[in-house]
Amino acid sequence: MLSIDLNCDLGESFGNYTIGNDEEVLGFVTSVNIACGYHAGDPVVMDKTVKLALDNRVAIGAHPSLPDLMGFGRRNMSISDKEARSYVIYQVGALDGFVKAHGGELKHVKPHGALYNMAATDYKLARAIAEAVYMVNPQLILIGLANSELIKAAKDVGLKSGNEVFADRAYNNDGTLVNRGNNGAVIHDVNECISRVIKMIKEGKVNSIEGKEILINADTVCIHGDNKIALDFAEKISCTLKAEEINIKALSNKL
Amino acid sequence: MLSIDLNCDLGESFGNYTIGNDEEVLGFVTSVNIACGYHAGDPVVMDKTVKLALDNRVAIGAHPSLPDLMGFGRRNMSISDKEARSYVIYQVGALDGFVKAHGGELKHVKPHGALYNMAATDYKLARAIAEAVYMVNPQLILIGLANSELIKAAKDVGLKSGNEVFADRAYNNDGTLVNRGNNGAVIHDVNECISRVIKMIKEGKVNSIEGKEILINADTVCIHGDNKIALDFAEKISCTLKAEEINIKALSNKL
Amino acid sequence: MLSIDLNCDLGESFGNYTIGNDEEVLGFVTSVNIACGYHAGDPVVMDKTVKLALDNRVAIGAHPSLPDLMGFGRRNMSISDKEARSYVIYQVGALDGFVKAHGGELKHVKPHGALYNMAATDYKLARAIAEAVYMVNPQLILIGLANSELIKAAKDVGLKSGNEVFADRAYNNDGTLVNRGNNGAVIHDVNECISRVIKMIKEGKVNSIEGKEILINADTVCIHGDNKIALDFAEKISCTLKAEEINIKALSNKL
Amino acid sequence: MLSIDLNCDLGESFGNYTIGNDEEVLGFVTSVNIACGYHAGDPVVMDKTVKLALDNRVAIGAHPSLPDLMGFGRRNMSISDKEARSYVIYQVGALDGFVKAHGGELKHVKPHGALYNMAATDYKLARAIAEAVYMVNPQLILIGLANSELIKAAKDVGLKSGNEVFADRAYNNDGTLVNRGNNGAVIHDVNECISRVIKMIKEGKVNSIEGKEILINADTVCIHGDNKIALDFAEKISCTLKAEEINIKALSNKL
Repeated sequence: MLSIDLNCDLGESFGNYTIGNDEEVLGFVTSVNIACGYHAGDPVVMDKTVKLALDNRVAIGAHPSLPDLMGFGRRNMSISDKEARSYVIYQVGALDGFVKAHGGELKHVKPHGALYNMAATDYKLARAIAEAVYMVNPQLILIGLANSELIKAAKDVGLKSGNEVFADRAYNNDGTLVNRGNNGAVIHDVNECISRVIKMIKEGKVNSIEGKEILINADTVCIHGDNKIALDFAEKISCTLKAEEINIKALSNKL
Repeated sequence: MLSIDLNCDLGESFGNYTIGNDEEVLGFVTSVNIACGYHAGDPVVMDKTVKLALDNRVAIGAHPSLPDLMGFGRRNMSISDKEARSYVIYQVGALDGFVKAHGGELKHVKPHGALYNMAATDYKLARAIAEAVYMVNPQLILIGLANSELIKAAKDVGLKSGNEVFADRAYNNDGTLVNRGNNGAVIHDVNECISRVIKMIKEGKVNSIEGKEILINADTVCIHGDNKIALDFAEKISCTLKAEEINIKALSNKL
Repeated sequence: MLSIDLNCDLGESFGNYTIGNDEEVLGFVTSVNIACGYHAGDPVVMDKTVKLALDNRVAIGAHPSLPDLMGFGRRNMSISDKEARSYVIYQVGALDGFVKAHGGELKHVKPHGALYNMAATDYKLARAIAEAVYMVNPQLILIGLANSELIKAAKDVGLKSGNEVFADRAYNNDGTLVNRGNNGAVIHDVNECISRVIKMIKEGKVNSIEGKEILINADTVCIHGDNKIALDFAEKISCTLKAEEINIKALSNKL
Repeated sequence: MLSIDLNCDLGESFGNYTIGNDEEVLGFVTSVNIACGYHAGDPVVMDKTVKLALDNRVAIGAHPSLPDLMGFGRRNMSISDKEARSYVIYQVGALDGFVKAHGGELKHVKPHGALYNMAATDYKLARAIAEAVYMVNPQLILIGLANSELIKAAKDVGLKSGNEVFADRAYNNDGTLVNRGNNGAVIHDVNECISRVIKMIKEGKVNSIEGKEILINADTVCIHGDNKIALDFAEKISCTLKAEEINIKALSNKL
């Protein structure tokens, strides 16, 4: 039977600031990526979020970022490999502290924002991230953009990897995401989004923005919980996957 | 045979800024407390410092602080118990990430600066810190001011504890340190410092600033590596302890 | 004719995080206190907020804080006078940069959160803040808790001051606010809140929590814009003041 | 009579961390660029540094940076024009607060590190920086790499500009600096450094790394105060300039 993981980012509040609908989105996902303080999340938020995730029996992952709270980790920074490695170890270790403190087990790591995007195409950076994850715990799964350099680096260092796909994003012929600034980069039709995901899971294929059918590995689908529309989509894709008899389960229960 | 641990703070550099003589002081101590990014230390510094400590075969501990880089963690802050617990879990977890990454094992936790001082007399805060340490790893030793509330809290939650004594600081009758601002708070005569430590270890006693002989438990002595004078003192106390046939060994090898 | 200033805190968003209803509350106030980056507000938010305030022709003030983004500036910290002075100069200068950049003029300073509360009773700290404000620009008005040490310090250094009163907070006999933790500290009845403010303005008196009528100077009333209830209150007090023929105008247009 | 400005970065200590030889280098320069808290410098350091600069009667400038304390502002970040503008206004305003507080007058702005380098070749970023400076105070001089995009942007917005040259750095044919990583990028012979500067000032020319004589405007020379060698160089170039009858004076006294 086919299976897929649904993952979402969680715990992106900070201090007096609250964002996301963490409790609602948890009803639809099997894995969560929890912010570690560098782009969002502070220790009190992390503690609360880890407990919430454990209560909901989802697989917990760390969501490390570039050190850029003001930019929410979305701005490229030219960091060295040594810096990348150290930042990932720091953040994964910190989150793991909370997971241990509440009797859970850390399952995966998914880089956030600019770090995720940079690592999709920069093998040196991807390798540094993968090495950091492996050094902290070689059992962790490293999630990255499907078929990207980060997936390659994960395999090269001996980590299990998870290919992440996006329901609402267009792909270039080489499997990279079409830049958000470009026409057609974001797909707004919900049904089209869902049918694309089903095709990715069942056939391992997606139509690129140029109309070419390309190969893509789909291990986990990125789900958002920012607003009502996102939550509606989460519910709809969840229902459709069940109707299609695709098993929704955490990557860590599969690999 | 009597034994004592000598501990020092390590890895307090940050970014472009370097302080301390980490390599030199490592020759004289058996335990180190490594900064975790809240008062000092950044991930690159932590990575380097953990490797250095492992190479020198000393016991590694985390040195968590209040979140106050600008004040080097030395300014009291009124944080809640929940905040204290979360800040400690975060920092201990982060440091543990580096220790694991380099194949070592975290042995103890010693709060830094204002957090250390506040926890010496505030049982609620001390308890929150002790709970945090226990939650991350119940095998960790919690180091605090000898006979203080932090030691009491450690015992109450089921942690092993390490009573820390200061060679160059005067004690009040109740076993607290005389405030640095007061006359006679700091003892400048090196020989007096050393003979006080020897007495603490051998007899479990120290003369308070008011001249009363009080009971004190001495498990570990705080050593500094800031400058030449501190390093000279470290060497001298190390030699004297050996001459007195007091075994210098890490707390984690004794408890 | 009697007059009163209505002030509110503005620009407390940060990076990806939005709080407050800045645009709505601006319709009801005559002065705004803009966050300067230490408890909230980043440069992009400050730029936008200053422009918004200028468009609404309200008096602009700086809202400096202790350096504590994670705690939203609400946690007491033991800072030195020198630190207090420098933190205020830094933040007032930074905000003044934006005000100048958009062709406006900075009118006042109101410390935020824990800094405000500490300065209400600690003359040394209050004095350091007042000196900092005077050094940057002796024409600035310093707003503090009515009849507090901060008002006294403002006068002592030669600054104009603004006594701030709270519609929904109970007062002790000595004019300090009843601690939020205590019973009766917050007054929930809107009509009572408003009649208390009218009495403060017209008679210069308020009934303390112990039932004693005490003297109070009311130059400016603190208005919130956090939510619908706060905005409704802002509108109601604004209407009542007009009905009572009390002129609502910025302190800087009066002093 | 020919004249030249000698400038150095100042006030790059932070909290408990001290770097630079601020007092010594002040004997040799006519302009200083003071860190504003984003890559170095905290409010207490800024206060002290501004006083020191005023006591030494040098021209004071702001030294704004990307927000990257951990990387000392040396790592490229992809910030928007709006962010660049806001960050510069914030930092220039903050420093100006201290200058005003001590009765001085801010004279110039020189971006730091990665912001300086990026603005040398990226006109859009350079323009955003120049606009920010102009908005805060159109009388300020904007210092940038000689003949770079930042100088062009300064002129375009109506600011006076200062072309900065480097004694110990090789130039490409297009007037940009040879990347530090390349062979021959740094010139180690002190006498050659000095004769290059003299030629730049007297003839407005320098020999590129490829041996071509190129045109260069030299308004101010970058001086370092990091260590003994840097201070010796500062003294030597200062003496030679006097011997060559080149007047050493602040750019703000010339433009």
